[in-house]
Amino acid sequence: MAPPSTTTVAGRDLAHPAREEIRLEQVLHALADPLRLAVVRTLAASPDELSCSVFELPVSKSTSTHHFRVLRESGVIAQVYRGTAKMNALRRADLDAIFPGLLDGVLAAAAVEAERLTTD
Amino acid sequence: MAPPSTTTVAGRDLAHPAREEIRLEQVLHALADPLRLAVVRTLAASPDELSCSVFELPVSKSTSTHHFRVLRESGVIAQVYRGTAKMNALRRADLDAIFPGLLDGVLAAAAVEAERLTTD
Repeated sequence: MAPPSTTTVAGRDLAHPAREEIRLEQVLHALADPLRLAVVRTLAASPDELSCSVFELPVSKSTSTHHFRVLRESGVIAQVYRGTAKMNALRRADLDAIFPGLLDGVLAAAAVEAERLTTD
Repeated sequence: MAPPSTTTVAGRDLAHPAREEIRLEQVLHALADPLRLAVVRTLAASPDELSCSVFELPVSKSTSTHHFRVLRESGVIAQVYRGTAKMNALRRADLDAIFPGLLDGVLAAAAVEAERLTTD
């Protein structure tokens, strides 16, 4: 059994699937939403972890929290509290190790899609 | 406007999105289900189109029809009637043209996933 992929803080730790618990269908489901895919694209382009508050999603706070939870519970992102901020990072190393090429394929497709929809 | 991707027969034609109507989120949603992904893997491995009856999905007929419809309406597969059989083919050329590498990435991941779950 591999150790959990994120550091946890007693009482405030958030549940993450270990690498071997990540399932393709759940990853694809997590990515199959425009807002969640936008979050993933932003995280993929950022060298640092990002606070939830950075993402100005056009939805309520609770819906936003839901989207981040779907991403975390599927294994796509890691979330950790730093003080009062909930920080987010893409689990690229885990995803690339399990499903080589998948994340890059989806990110490339998302870039194409964004370009297509802009130029329509 | 590109022509529709499938030949239609008056009165029995099934609705398909044209290539430019295919949306990434809908493709990912269609693929984010174990049964639909299994259908796609089988179609990807087949040189010929396959009848729905070839797929012995462990669900009711109506649920099976639903899964094929999701795949068709998202642009992942083409369905056409030949006599009384509904035949299915992967829209690989369309998907590869719009999102290069996406389908291959998902198929490779699905193969990994099948192997992982078998050897667990």
